[in-house]
Amino acid sequence: ISLTGYIKSIRKQKNITFGVLSDGSTQPGLQLVLPNSGSVQLSNGCTVAVNGTLAESPRRQPELHVSPDGLRIIGPSPPSTYPIQKQALSTEYLRTNVHLRARTDKIASTLRLRARIKKILEGWFDEEGFTHVHTPVLTGNDCEGGGETFGVVPADFFGSEGGDGAASHLTVSAQLHLEAMAWALGRVYTLNPCFRAERSDTSRHLAEFWMLEAEWNFPATQTFTTPGPAPATLDPRSHLMQVCDTVEHALKHVLADCLPSSPDSPDSTSSAPISLPQQDLSFLSPSPSHLIALARAADPSTSWARISYTHALEILNAATKDSTTPLRLPPPEWGSSLASEHERYLAETYARGPIFVYDYPASIKPFYMRRNDGAKIDEHSDGANRQTVSCFDLLIPRIGELAGGSVREERYEVLERVLSDENVARASPDPDAPALSTKDHPLNWYLSLRKHGSSPHGGFGIGFERLVSWISGVENVKECIPVPRTAG
Amino acid sequence: ISLTGYIKSIRKQKNITFGVLSDGSTQPGLQLVLPNSGSVQLSNGCTVAVNGTLAESPRRQPELHVSPDGLRIIGPSPPSTYPIQKQALSTEYLRTNVHLRARTDKIASTLRLRARIKKILEGWFDEEGFTHVHTPVLTGNDCEGGGETFGVVPADFFGSEGGDGAASHLTVSAQLHLEAMAWALGRVYTLNPCFRAERSDTSRHLAEFWMLEAEWNFPATQTFTTPGPAPATLDPRSHLMQVCDTVEHALKHVLADCLPSSPDSPDSTSSAPISLPQQDLSFLSPSPSHLIALARAADPSTSWARISYTHALEILNAATKDSTTPLRLPPPEWGSSLASEHERYLAETYARGPIFVYDYPASIKPFYMRRNDGAKIDEHSDGANRQTVSCFDLLIPRIGELAGGSVREERYEVLERVLSDENVARASPDPDAPALSTKDHPLNWYLSLRKHGSSPHGGFGIGFERLVSWISGVENVKECIPVPRTAG
Repeated sequence: ISLTGYIKSIRKQKNITFGVLSDGSTQPGLQLVLPNSGSVQLSNGCTVAVNGTLAESPRRQPELHVSPDGLRIIGPSPPSTYPIQKQALSTEYLRTNVHLRARTDKIASTLRLRARIKKILEGWFDEEGFTHVHTPVLTGNDCEGGGETFGVVPADFFGSEGGDGAASHLTVSAQLHLEAMAWALGRVYTLNPCFRAERSDTSRHLAEFWMLEAEWNFPATQTFTTPGPAPATLDPRSHLMQVCDTVEHALKHVLADCLPSSPDSPDSTSSAPISLPQQDLSFLSPSPSHLIALARAADPSTSWARISYTHALEILNAATKDSTTPLRLPPPEWGSSLASEHERYLAETYARGPIFVYDYPASIKPFYMRRNDGAKIDEHSDGANRQTVSCFDLLIPRIGELAGGSVREERYEVLERVLSDENVARASPDPDAPALSTKDHPLNWYLSLRKHGSSPHGGFGIGFERLVSWISGVENVKECIPVPRTAG
Repeated sequence: ISLTGYIKSIRKQKNITFGVLSDGSTQPGLQLVLPNSGSVQLSNGCTVAVNGTLAESPRRQPELHVSPDGLRIIGPSPPSTYPIQKQALSTEYLRTNVHLRARTDKIASTLRLRARIKKILEGWFDEEGFTHVHTPVLTGNDCEGGGETFGVVPADFFGSEGGDGAASHLTVSAQLHLEAMAWALGRVYTLNPCFRAERSDTSRHLAEFWMLEAEWNFPATQTFTTPGPAPATLDPRSHLMQVCDTVEHALKHVLADCLPSSPDSPDSTSSAPISLPQQDLSFLSPSPSHLIALARAADPSTSWARISYTHALEILNAATKDSTTPLRLPPPEWGSSLASEHERYLAETYARGPIFVYDYPASIKPFYMRRNDGAKIDEHSDGANRQTVSCFDLLIPRIGELAGGSVREERYEVLERVLSDENVARASPDPDAPALSTKDHPLNWYLSLRKHGSSPHGGFGIGFERLVSWISGVENVKECIPVPRTAG
């Protein structure tokens, strides 16, 4: 057998040298056995071509026995400068060698797992009748508000191309463009890069990250080809729950693919050549509790917990009074965001797994989320103005928010009023800001989608690096992407 | 049966109204038949929920018969302002309504075909053992040289993250990062957005476009798991031809999926629900000659033509002297680029299909391409300095360059010399430009890949919108992407 690859590690004994040869495609490399005669000097990282015979070994992996003239060094690797050695290297050290760090077992396994998750997740959406759409990176929209976007130079590069306004910064979300495509193509999804110019250096934030986003009309109804029960329900609650169902189904599908099949289930009939994701996941997560938690989340027979924001506050208030659950922060007042400590408490301690929290206050969510009707504003109203929106966050242990989505505001008048209010609020520091309903407002094209055949619709986004982090058990999202870009 | 969707077109007769209902997922919509009694007023673009019964019709498509109370308008659409009418609309007009134009049959079919091409193309690389890698959009590399990149504000956002230098503009190619990953993960590929800040407003250029790129070591050898013939050949010609083979196999695979199966071939056993790509391609390309040309290119029993740059010049010189092939431009001098008229001549008239042109002059190609050895510099040398590099362009009819690739320079000393020469050349206007071999040179990390276990390697990039344009027959790449970004 003839192979090429690079040497991941070597171990010299008196008469014989063991080396691990890898081409990068699998987690365990191949064990080389060669006599110490001859002049060939192996070193970590060097590239070789070998000729030898495969043999069973006392360990589980086969060994490749190589005669002295069966090995040729193609590219040497001076040990004095090669930074990837066998001993454990800190993730911080490896980040200073991003172009080489994927040669370590841990990063390579994480990146192979990432590729697998992409393939399985996109495959699920394809099978479910979603059409993939490449949404633009250069855009005039600031979908989430707040203005933490990257500008692009030259700012005047793009002429006015109608509807969309002049593109001048990097996208923070594909959602608005996906909505336009959902009317034209039906169910649509994308896995696209997004950019946030926040300077937050945490284990959960990147300046450039990838997000799977989906968007479709009439979430609560069946698809075109299958006979449905009733015509379009207009109850936003049904639509919201269907969006949650879609997220839960997609993620359980991915989890089931990555996890080793349980002993009492029949073997997978997948045509994949070998169970690459299981191999890499087993290497990354030797902790049984992590694998058990993933398996429980993947269980198709039980649903993930779903509670309202208001109910979540009650749970957090009760937990704060209980001295056995020492939350350091008091729960927020109604109308404020949950702290990440509270998000993790809900997932880790209350639900012991993924949990959907829905119906957040309108004041802390973006303009495009559908306002809930008065009767459903708040199950514990004290008469105060407690406007909520039909949205959800999916919280998971350790990471907090993994996904978020909503029913979108489909009513022209309501959306126009919300945009006007925001526009007025924003205009105050700058009296020259364009008034809404002029042709120049950058979101007029989006508003016009409600003028012509509007319909109930919704969608969501899943943070892709956080998903990889959740499944792999790799703590920091910087190690879950090949080349991380973070605020320095 | 109960359905929801939007009205693509309506046709009123005396007692009855015909409408086409669509949810966007397929090319033909569903024919609605409803009596003219009742007060419901359909209009183009409005969203409806219908209850009715399916019936066979004299045409091939089934009809949905709806009683007056079986139709409810969810979202009306005022005909006076709805810009998408049934009559033919110019692509220029539609570009001013990018958020609505995908509701036309032509754009919707093109975008569904695009999604299908993505799925099949990525699936091919997955099956062939390539690992998908998400390469960064924000980067410090200017891979192709020339500086036509978009800068990102704030330019000082990123701290120095080691190896890669400070990220400061949008990527023009993923290649350099893919090379680093190829050592760690084996065969790798990506389908990523790329950005060129050239102000070229043609039917073949976008400022933001997508490119499928692949990169791997030892192109001419077999994969790890299959027994190979000989150990790593180091002949760059074998490597280059193997890279061409990979491009040809991948593209033929995509073509075969999109084309209707020929009458004398057995039916496809694909598990796809219906032949969506054939449906959309048939709608887009009624021209038999287009389908025949694609079928000939897809034929697995014949290989696409391959000629050297020097031979291409001979062909062009001969053609210029032949009065029956009126080329308007004289062929270039050896050492200059081919004009697009010449590229199209080679594909359309000479090869009558895709053609690889290889071994271009080093002076017109980027620094990373492998210098050919002297003996192979030029089969028609006149003694002048005619250094070529081991690269290719794939030219196709109508479009010209569809893909390009090369064997990469794996020799440390040669690459360092080329970079030094370029650095010197660039440094002349700016005496403060960093000298090579200082730690600050932005490509030092790339050079260091040759220091530790270098090996012969190569790769290529396929312009994704041009591929969609070639297959769909849609002339302008602006109509082959959901939201085009072009220099205005």
